Amino acid sequence: MTADDLVELRRDLHRRPEPAWREFYTTARLVEELDSRFGDALDELHVGPDAIATDHRLAVPDDAELTHAFERARETGVDEDVLESLEGGYTGAVAVLEKGDGPTVGLRVDIDGLPRQESDDPDHEPVAEGFRSEHEGAMHACGHDAHATIGVGVLEAITESDFEGTLKVFFQPAEEVIGGGKSMAKSEHLVDVDYLLATHIGLDHPTGEIVAGVDGFLAVSHLEAEFTGEPAHAGGRPEQGRNAVQAMATAVQNLYAIPRNSDGPTRINAGIVEGGSAANVIPESASIMAEVRGETTELMEYMVDNAERVVESAAEMHDCEVEVELGAQAPSATSDQEIADVVEEVAGEVEGVENVLERDELGGSEDATFLMREVQQNGGLACYVGVGTDHPGGHHTATFDVDEPSIGHGVETLASAIERIACERP
Amino acid sequence: MTADDLVELRRDLHRRPEPAWREFYTTARLVEELDSRFGDALDELHVGPDAIATDHRLAVPDDAELTHAFERARETGVDEDVLESLEGGYTGAVAVLEKGDGPTVGLRVDIDGLPRQESDDPDHEPVAEGFRSEHEGAMHACGHDAHATIGVGVLEAITESDFEGTLKVFFQPAEEVIGGGKSMAKSEHLVDVDYLLATHIGLDHPTGEIVAGVDGFLAVSHLEAEFTGEPAHAGGRPEQGRNAVQAMATAVQNLYAIPRNSDGPTRINAGIVEGGSAANVIPESASIMAEVRGETTELMEYMVDNAERVVESAAEMHDCEVEVELGAQAPSATSDQEIADVVEEVAGEVEGVENVLERDELGGSEDATFLMREVQQNGGLACYVGVGTDHPGGHHTATFDVDEPSIGHGVETLASAIERIACERP
Amino acid sequence: MTADDLVELRRDLHRRPEPAWREFYTTARLVEELDSRFGDALDELHVGPDAIATDHRLAVPDDAELTHAFERARETGVDEDVLESLEGGYTGAVAVLEKGDGPTVGLRVDIDGLPRQESDDPDHEPVAEGFRSEHEGAMHACGHDAHATIGVGVLEAITESDFEGTLKVFFQPAEEVIGGGKSMAKSEHLVDVDYLLATHIGLDHPTGEIVAGVDGFLAVSHLEAEFTGEPAHAGGRPEQGRNAVQAMATAVQNLYAIPRNSDGPTRINAGIVEGGSAANVIPESASIMAEVRGETTELMEYMVDNAERVVESAAEMHDCEVEVELGAQAPSATSDQEIADVVEEVAGEVEGVENVLERDELGGSEDATFLMREVQQNGGLACYVGVGTDHPGGHHTATFDVDEPSIGHGVETLASAIERIACERP
Amino acid sequence: MTADDLVELRRDLHRRPEPAWREFYTTARLVEELDSRFGDALDELHVGPDAIATDHRLAVPDDAELTHAFERARETGVDEDVLESLEGGYTGAVAVLEKGDGPTVGLRVDIDGLPRQESDDPDHEPVAEGFRSEHEGAMHACGHDAHATIGVGVLEAITESDFEGTLKVFFQPAEEVIGGGKSMAKSEHLVDVDYLLATHIGLDHPTGEIVAGVDGFLAVSHLEAEFTGEPAHAGGRPEQGRNAVQAMATAVQNLYAIPRNSDGPTRINAGIVEGGSAANVIPESASIMAEVRGETTELMEYMVDNAERVVESAAEMHDCEVEVELGAQAPSATSDQEIADVVEEVAGEVEGVENVLERDELGGSEDATFLMREVQQNGGLACYVGVGTDHPGGHHTATFDVDEPSIGHGVETLASAIERIACERP
Repeated sequence: MTADDLVELRRDLHRRPEPAWREFYTTARLVEELDSRFGDALDELHVGPDAIATDHRLAVPDDAELTHAFERARETGVDEDVLESLEGGYTGAVAVLEKGDGPTVGLRVDIDGLPRQESDDPDHEPVAEGFRSEHEGAMHACGHDAHATIGVGVLEAITESDFEGTLKVFFQPAEEVIGGGKSMAKSEHLVDVDYLLATHIGLDHPTGEIVAGVDGFLAVSHLEAEFTGEPAHAGGRPEQGRNAVQAMATAVQNLYAIPRNSDGPTRINAGIVEGGSAANVIPESASIMAEVRGETTELMEYMVDNAERVVESAAEMHDCEVEVELGAQAPSATSDQEIADVVEEVAGEVEGVENVLERDELGGSEDATFLMREVQQNGGLACYVGVGTDHPGGHHTATFDVDEPSIGHGVETLASAIERIACERP
Repeated sequence: MTADDLVELRRDLHRRPEPAWREFYTTARLVEELDSRFGDALDELHVGPDAIATDHRLAVPDDAELTHAFERARETGVDEDVLESLEGGYTGAVAVLEKGDGPTVGLRVDIDGLPRQESDDPDHEPVAEGFRSEHEGAMHACGHDAHATIGVGVLEAITESDFEGTLKVFFQPAEEVIGGGKSMAKSEHLVDVDYLLATHIGLDHPTGEIVAGVDGFLAVSHLEAEFTGEPAHAGGRPEQGRNAVQAMATAVQNLYAIPRNSDGPTRINAGIVEGGSAANVIPESASIMAEVRGETTELMEYMVDNAERVVESAAEMHDCEVEVELGAQAPSATSDQEIADVVEEVAGEVEGVENVLERDELGGSEDATFLMREVQQNGGLACYVGVGTDHPGGHHTATFDVDEPSIGHGVETLASAIERIACERP
Repeated sequence: MTADDLVELRRDLHRRPEPAWREFYTTARLVEELDSRFGDALDELHVGPDAIATDHRLAVPDDAELTHAFERARETGVDEDVLESLEGGYTGAVAVLEKGDGPTVGLRVDIDGLPRQESDDPDHEPVAEGFRSEHEGAMHACGHDAHATIGVGVLEAITESDFEGTLKVFFQPAEEVIGGGKSMAKSEHLVDVDYLLATHIGLDHPTGEIVAGVDGFLAVSHLEAEFTGEPAHAGGRPEQGRNAVQAMATAVQNLYAIPRNSDGPTRINAGIVEGGSAANVIPESASIMAEVRGETTELMEYMVDNAERVVESAAEMHDCEVEVELGAQAPSATSDQEIADVVEEVAGEVEGVENVLERDELGGSEDATFLMREVQQNGGLACYVGVGTDHPGGHHTATFDVDEPSIGHGVETLASAIERIACERP
Repeated sequence: MTADDLVELRRDLHRRPEPAWREFYTTARLVEELDSRFGDALDELHVGPDAIATDHRLAVPDDAELTHAFERARETGVDEDVLESLEGGYTGAVAVLEKGDGPTVGLRVDIDGLPRQESDDPDHEPVAEGFRSEHEGAMHACGHDAHATIGVGVLEAITESDFEGTLKVFFQPAEEVIGGGKSMAKSEHLVDVDYLLATHIGLDHPTGEIVAGVDGFLAVSHLEAEFTGEPAHAGGRPEQGRNAVQAMATAVQNLYAIPRNSDGPTRINAGIVEGGSAANVIPESASIMAEVRGETTELMEYMVDNAERVVESAAEMHDCEVEVELGAQAPSATSDQEIADVVEEVAGEVEGVENVLERDELGGSEDATFLMREVQQNGGLACYVGVGTDHPGGHHTATFDVDEPSIGHGVETLASAIERIACERP
């Protein structure tokens, strides 16, 4: 079902996963692919700083990390001109195809990897088939390699179709850190979009299953706490220290214990923590990179308020200072029924698709919500489509993988939906 | 009191602090200094792998860190031949001076820095005087730059004295991680030592004060715990994770809460902790680098036993696995009264020394105890001498500094004591 | 709307709140009321051990508490014969009214109070109106005084109505500890019930609002942990103790931190804790009385499994023993649509009812689910009806109170529904 | 060695242990014993309110507890007049014996029991011999039954001796809660005391061992924290609660984790905790009864300061209020060498005493320090004498017991010392 060349693209991207704002190779590789496939057929191709609202990037890593990733990308021999335009962490691209008179339909796919080590189990497909991550400590553990590939596949399918109107494919960076959605939502390219589709593979749905309209996006906020105490010799003068690691540990214990809320689901995770400098020094500094979520913005704020109080009291308890910074936040969003109806209809006709669910809850967060809400506030319609894939490990785990035929299901379902939307203008 | 050239040496060492087993520049610089000062007058100079029992190095850092430090040292233009002999983290030196018939007296000084950032406060002397650490994240925050300098100064003083016997100065690496003491204690160079002196500057004693015999060395053990859980998407499937950071935080809280022991002082510090990989992933791994201490070996073991149980239960509580590894351990030790008496006597005659304490308690740990016990078990005598210095910040803090005249007090007290010991053979 | 005599009954019950299995006065007072109102018109009146399946009582308090409450009830001068039949904690009653040929309809109301102190704020209605709890440390903080009153009111309304069939009113004890539902569900009186209604006042719905079918009953389980350590003199030999309070505190911190579950709502509460015997003794014993809940039985079990592991690891961490006992458990349940439709219909016609919701989620637990499921498993239908009431404080708080006109709304809605059900036999 | 009648007295007291300020039976029984043994030979006998400075009682229990203990004492048939004079918790006695011209020597013994259950192991001597505690939940687990007995024995021995001077025996209540020492120190009876002896049995010294001068009394302070939150239905509205038990548990975890202090020993114990009212109510209140100690007053204050901060931050963390009250405090003290020398000398001559230690450290606290310091500040001398006894269980544990021959060692050592002191006036 999936053309071999799409599989090849996906595996190439898989081999070089790049976390948020470091998608240098990925962007350049996609540009190369689009150029070679469509050449002049593509009406516009906006790359890097031209693709996004540069003021609205969130959670950009520090220069050292950007440079490291940039140099690594350079060594692959990818197009130097494209690469240079991305320098400083301006990644992503927007491809525009104009095919006659009709509405403007957008498709948003995300392209970043995760900072985690991929499994080296010989039974893990990417190991067995030789396309395991070559980037130490990074992995496509959430299927964005397949998403980017679907974006390319849909462009191709629409090129060859009877579609009338304009198709814009948004290759969005930095989804995993809630960092890129806003910058794409605020770019000029989204302003005239009438209909927006976004998509995700997997989500515990098996290959052959499509979810026409995904909902249940939790609002999310990042929260970073930096504790500062006072060092001291741990053997000689422990009482002269003010222990930032004790403050951090107290905070972690109590963050997870924030009361459940009867108004709806909430989440909390102290995802990255660190502290201290040497075994024999009372730790002077420690930090927590946390995120909280809620079914609604109110519930997310309930979690933020509680988390801030916990962190501040934990610092005070150990006579430390703390700086709390709220990071990137993404809102909640809802798939419009009109589009979900179209997707449901066309998905049933795709070869290999055996089951179509009308609705399902995500229960997680996604910064596609920035784009969905932007389009909806402009009077347009938006829908988030789930494409089932058998995945051996869960999302974000070392053995996550995509069952490749599902890439084809995604391409066909989305392309058909885009055609139908342009035709029916729901 | 202190010769200008000694101050210059101390400041040069201060500028390039190197933590445990990375004393590449430091060792090479000391060798250079000894060569230029004494040339052939020095009977032996054992460097790097020839100075220590290489099998007994403890807590050696990984290759990446060693290489980084090695390359940094190379860039200073220090003697390439000496440097190469140290490659792989074989640092330190033993200088031997034979001056006629008499006992063999050892002097042990340690030379490593600490992995902590030095203050950039303009009032901090090394900033004001332009010899602040040039190594990002490293600092001589415990005065070992002065110790190494005292070692050189004592050699010089003895060269010019009436001393009859053999003097060996042990420039020991890796004290701060309890890593180098054992390898020097087990080296061939200690076997024939009849009397051993070791020294530390500061310890909350002011400039002009000498402690003839320091005691109260706490036995110490390092303990490293690596927690392993299961990652999961923190928004989508939090219940599928097994949270290593929660396990670590629970352990930290309870480690510090191990009951105080009425048999004597104990210590605990979770000096370095870290965990997790991304804000939106339930943390799969976390670690604690801790150390425990006790006035006696039994008390240290009481802490070890409790710490192990805490760490293992914390892992189990969060359904994680944990590997606990006991690291370097150093014993307790006592200064022999016979030597302390000599030190007390001679210190009173040193210009600038205004107060001599017979005894004081350290209340911390020191791996000089390995050397002291080795000498004592061979039938020799050992003593640990405190040299007061006004230090603005506490040991191991960012504003620690040495009041330089105290270097001269140390040199003169120790040299006089060595002469007297050789003469009186207590 | 509410007859004055019903209000008087409610206030009298309010004045003498009796927690689980101690409803001695309450039961006797209700029997007295039923006798005086209906006399021989009532076909059957089963009291105490005759009303329940005595083997299935759960969470019965100890003899001392039962005796204390029993004696207190005796002092009120209530009927001695009735009282004696209740001795040992066999409380509750079932009233049966037969009115010709028709189905058997059950109405279940609960009658117990809570072990908490009532507010003495002069603005608190029971204070202002002189019917505040006279029982130190006990309070009707969940409206069961109104529930019992509604039971009496419905009996009266049906007596005077055209209802044909049999009405059974179950005055159930011990709902707050999930203790009485099962014993009433397993009694012989429920076997022939075709339709069951249960009701609750308040639930954050205002006066004038009716919820036709309440759902979202969380499955619930109690869990009791008894920690045992070793005492020691806290000053002289702290290290010889094994501290049960530290174990308990560690458990509490981690119980609340059990991961949220994406499959649905869960709850945890360490509702009662205690430990230790004297300030200067390392605590030898401690306990936690906790409850966990889940939207489904699976979710409740997820919480139970995690809670058990947390408690056991906390004990181990502090070298203590622990006995964990699972207490009373209640299942989840669903209101049948057929009955909810009837309720919705009739409620709209009740004077003072301004808003009727078809469905709402409780989000808490209720052991009425035992009776609902029993009837449903016998082929009958069941429905749980919410009766709005303006309540100043939340349920289970010191300022909770019932807006008395809502009692009339409950009586009329339920009586009309019962009539209609008997007539329509949905 | 010990007269049978002294053993009988000790066992009778053991059978009826009475915690702080509830020593109704104990005081009355001692008065009875003194009357029957000495009658008019005793010059003064001050009982209850006449024995102490009533304004200075600390940590007096509430009326309910006092009444319960008072009624229990009344049922024993003990002298009603004496008993009535003690009502309200004014316990203890001071016996005065004047024997000619000489100094005034005081002996202080404490008489209270502990609130803990005694072992019912058949091998536990009090069980085997039939004098186990008859008071549920109370026990002489620290040997004060023996202390009171020694007080009587010394009076008898001095009566029969050549002693010239005045002997005052202080039977002090409420030592275990640091409650009675101050009230006895501030009474008029101590003003003219020239020499004071105090004593304790056991302390990990075996039968036949005497410690002439005990030191190392830790300064101690009680600290009580009452947390107040907000209740809520734990299933229905958990987010509306403010959880006092979570605050308390967080505090407990962090109290024990207050950094050890290199200046000397410290202690912390959360000896009694409780919280919450029902499994299904978010706990509105919780409390901690803690004590902290330090080798010096400064160290005790270091602990108090840290404990207060921990408790306040824990409350804030869970959005609760807390009231912290510092309770009874006792100072540190030192045994005077002059008296310790006398005790050492005479103890060596006592039959059955095989070993006399000059000095030992207690490492715990004792409110005898109030009396010792008072006497010392008045220009007198004081000494605390340890009397070894084989004790199967540790102090404050369920199997603590006194090896009865040691009572005789105590009597003889102290009586001889008193004689010698009066004679030598050191």
